[in-house]
Amino acid sequence: MESIHQIMRQSAEAFQVYRKVSGKEKARFLRAIAEEIEALGMALIQTTMEETNLPEARLLGERGRTIFQCKMFADLLEEGSWVEARIDTADLARTPLPKVDIRKMLVPIGTVVVFGASNFPYAYSTAGGDTASALAAGCPVVVKGHPAHARTSTMVAEAILRAAERTGMPKGVFAHVDGGNGFEVGKYLVMHPLTKAVGFTGSFIGGKALFDLANQRPEPIPVFSEMGSINPVVLMPEKMSVASEDVALKYAASITQGAGQFCTNPGLILGVDNADLSNFIKVLAKEIEQIVPVKMLNAGIYQNYESKRVVALSQENVIAEAESLIERTETIQAVSTVASVDADTFLDNPTLHQEVFGPFSLLVKCKDEAQLLTVIQHLEGQLTTTLMATEAELSTHPEIVDALRSICGRLIFDGVPTGVEVCFAMQHGGPFPACTDARFSAVGPDAIKRFVRPASFQNFPNSLLPAELQNENPLNIWRMVDNNWQK
Amino acid sequence: MESIHQIMRQSAEAFQVYRKVSGKEKARFLRAIAEEIEALGMALIQTTMEETNLPEARLLGERGRTIFQCKMFADLLEEGSWVEARIDTADLARTPLPKVDIRKMLVPIGTVVVFGASNFPYAYSTAGGDTASALAAGCPVVVKGHPAHARTSTMVAEAILRAAERTGMPKGVFAHVDGGNGFEVGKYLVMHPLTKAVGFTGSFIGGKALFDLANQRPEPIPVFSEMGSINPVVLMPEKMSVASEDVALKYAASITQGAGQFCTNPGLILGVDNADLSNFIKVLAKEIEQIVPVKMLNAGIYQNYESKRVVALSQENVIAEAESLIERTETIQAVSTVASVDADTFLDNPTLHQEVFGPFSLLVKCKDEAQLLTVIQHLEGQLTTTLMATEAELSTHPEIVDALRSICGRLIFDGVPTGVEVCFAMQHGGPFPACTDARFSAVGPDAIKRFVRPASFQNFPNSLLPAELQNENPLNIWRMVDNNWQK
Repeated sequence: MESIHQIMRQSAEAFQVYRKVSGKEKARFLRAIAEEIEALGMALIQTTMEETNLPEARLLGERGRTIFQCKMFADLLEEGSWVEARIDTADLARTPLPKVDIRKMLVPIGTVVVFGASNFPYAYSTAGGDTASALAAGCPVVVKGHPAHARTSTMVAEAILRAAERTGMPKGVFAHVDGGNGFEVGKYLVMHPLTKAVGFTGSFIGGKALFDLANQRPEPIPVFSEMGSINPVVLMPEKMSVASEDVALKYAASITQGAGQFCTNPGLILGVDNADLSNFIKVLAKEIEQIVPVKMLNAGIYQNYESKRVVALSQENVIAEAESLIERTETIQAVSTVASVDADTFLDNPTLHQEVFGPFSLLVKCKDEAQLLTVIQHLEGQLTTTLMATEAELSTHPEIVDALRSICGRLIFDGVPTGVEVCFAMQHGGPFPACTDARFSAVGPDAIKRFVRPASFQNFPNSLLPAELQNENPLNIWRMVDNNWQK
Repeated sequence: MESIHQIMRQSAEAFQVYRKVSGKEKARFLRAIAEEIEALGMALIQTTMEETNLPEARLLGERGRTIFQCKMFADLLEEGSWVEARIDTADLARTPLPKVDIRKMLVPIGTVVVFGASNFPYAYSTAGGDTASALAAGCPVVVKGHPAHARTSTMVAEAILRAAERTGMPKGVFAHVDGGNGFEVGKYLVMHPLTKAVGFTGSFIGGKALFDLANQRPEPIPVFSEMGSINPVVLMPEKMSVASEDVALKYAASITQGAGQFCTNPGLILGVDNADLSNFIKVLAKEIEQIVPVKMLNAGIYQNYESKRVVALSQENVIAEAESLIERTETIQAVSTVASVDADTFLDNPTLHQEVFGPFSLLVKCKDEAQLLTVIQHLEGQLTTTLMATEAELSTHPEIVDALRSICGRLIFDGVPTGVEVCFAMQHGGPFPACTDARFSAVGPDAIKRFVRPASFQNFPNSLLPAELQNENPLNIWRMVDNNWQK
């Protein structure tokens, strides 16, 4: 671990320089990262296809998203208002006590350790959202390469290092640690006193373990673990009476998209047991049966899917409604599956509340809307919830809307949870156990807020303040000055 | 504990209503709290004087601040922009995938448990900053009354309940638990599954214990513990060469103000050992010797002060520079004390880094500016740091400015840390162990952000969105719409 200790020291030294690099210069660095990743060309795509079994089109799309994210943070830095500058000017004539001048802005917290996701080898891995947002915030980053795509991770890391060098960033602003499969390197990184925050995307067990470690440190640090979610979908009766077939077709696609290997995959569907729901199941089943099996990310993920799927199917009262009937050509191809169970059984059996990572969805048949509400109220925290309803049902069922809002970060009306738009209004993060900190988003420009803290300057000479807080507003950013927003 | 369980259940039920109460109605509630506290009149002041030994003028001032805080949050709610509304409108023509409509705002998280401070029986207790900010956020509050001012707490709690009733707030929106001195009630409240966040102001031991408990819950929750701080003050040589006497007079007042019972009390002073520092000590000592001893908050706090003071004075190489020479008339009057020690000893002895809560300050004599920097780099997280320097020294010593910035929430130039302005730009909260979460402030309007999380609505019909997110912007608040701030 001595070499990792040296990396952490160099990272802390880099922070002393990088924290003061201007937004415009950090933006140049992020744009250079985007360029260097693009310059890796098809060699990168080819490597990742070999390592992850993901198809070329998907990887091209994900690479585009990764590049977009780097540029999005560059845009945010160039615009500059994200630092939430607040200025309260002095009032020396105030009685009984004069008012001093105080100014506040967000500042970076130090080295961020990033654990990438197996299911997003670009967009939530080495140069993904966590890395880009931390670098944008002004924090050096140390990435623990994901063993499932080690060569991809190394290639992207080298691209970042080239970008750092050609834009004159301090040595140590980014580092890549190849830790293999074991937990020891990850533990060492999280416990290292120079680590100031952790970003993680992956399983509940892994994310929760890092969270617990970080809180046991002499100096606890924030851990942003984005973990499992079953993304409940509620099918309301009126909607189903007019659109059961259409909804079934949409969901057959959403459940099986990318072999179900998305954190927003709809793993749980709740409906009121009636003829429309039966029709929904019939249409959904027919679609699922025709899904062509595709390879999962790796053997470990496939084995995990298969064992959890079998466990779910073997639970009392669980009925297998449909499995893909297309013959598999390789073992690690996932069998898309939809099962159903009655609500009473579901409420009594915690095993059925667990995520089955892959193209699996469980449909819970409720006796009526009252039981549907009860089921929702017994669900744990989720990234998303979805309400398939008519507009009339939305307004006549506020209790269902409220119950869904309570447990999720994003509530979708009449849509599917898969497909996470990268934008300001996106909240990707929900109440525990979906995430360890529901107060922050892992997607979109606001993800930068995970790696900063507010800092006040009292009675400081104007010329020595950060540019963001100087009287003249040299960066022309939005600021709250004496209780008013202004530019 | 059965009665407390009932209180928590009622609080959770109240949340289902209160979360949807409009900002304007919550503002009416907060203004009613301010009125009801004022209506308690001198009976409240008298009771608190008996319970805390604090003088009338101080309590009148603190009551004024408490009322101001309630009104400040009411103003914030009436203005409305604090919810950070973000709207990304749909672009159905986008290729390859259409863009859906997504909107995000901050929403309340649920019941907040508040542990008040002994040293601020109004402003950081029953109706203090934590309670006011949580109620403003839309969260019900359960206050564990501080045993050191139990009657004060009960009177204020009754005022809040009257305000809730006359403004039509749901039953259970506020509750007061009289838990006595033991830890059991506090532990039960923090561990209760319906508790969603904790606000605490007090000792490191108490605050850290609550933080650890909250992280051991099946569902961990955020704990905002504002704990100890020694608020280091750095005396730079050039400043001391022109103003040692003036600085000494300012600090004699700051160290002993309110018997030193402030979380921003300057407990550590760092200077370069020379004739100017000796003059500073001489003038400071003369002032300290003439400080009239005043009663501390209670016998426990006095005993704690006296024992920690004696321990500090008994450490090797520590010199007692001055003690108040005015005779005490009652045992629990604090003896104002200034001691000094050389920097090498200070660096080697962790006991000297600990807070002595009361009118005590330790002066660390450094050989030169390099050693001064070393000492700063070895300090833990603080609420504040202060730099007594000339403007020239500020610009010629960026390394000292940076080192001070790294460890604190608020950096003061040429002033004293005592006196915490309640305003937007105030950051009251610093890196661990000053606080358990340096990303949030316990003072000022931004304190509301501790008790909310972002929530997104995707593809929602306009009329069913919260008013803050509707197209027409009916509340006329500042919003980020398609990447632009607008009203």
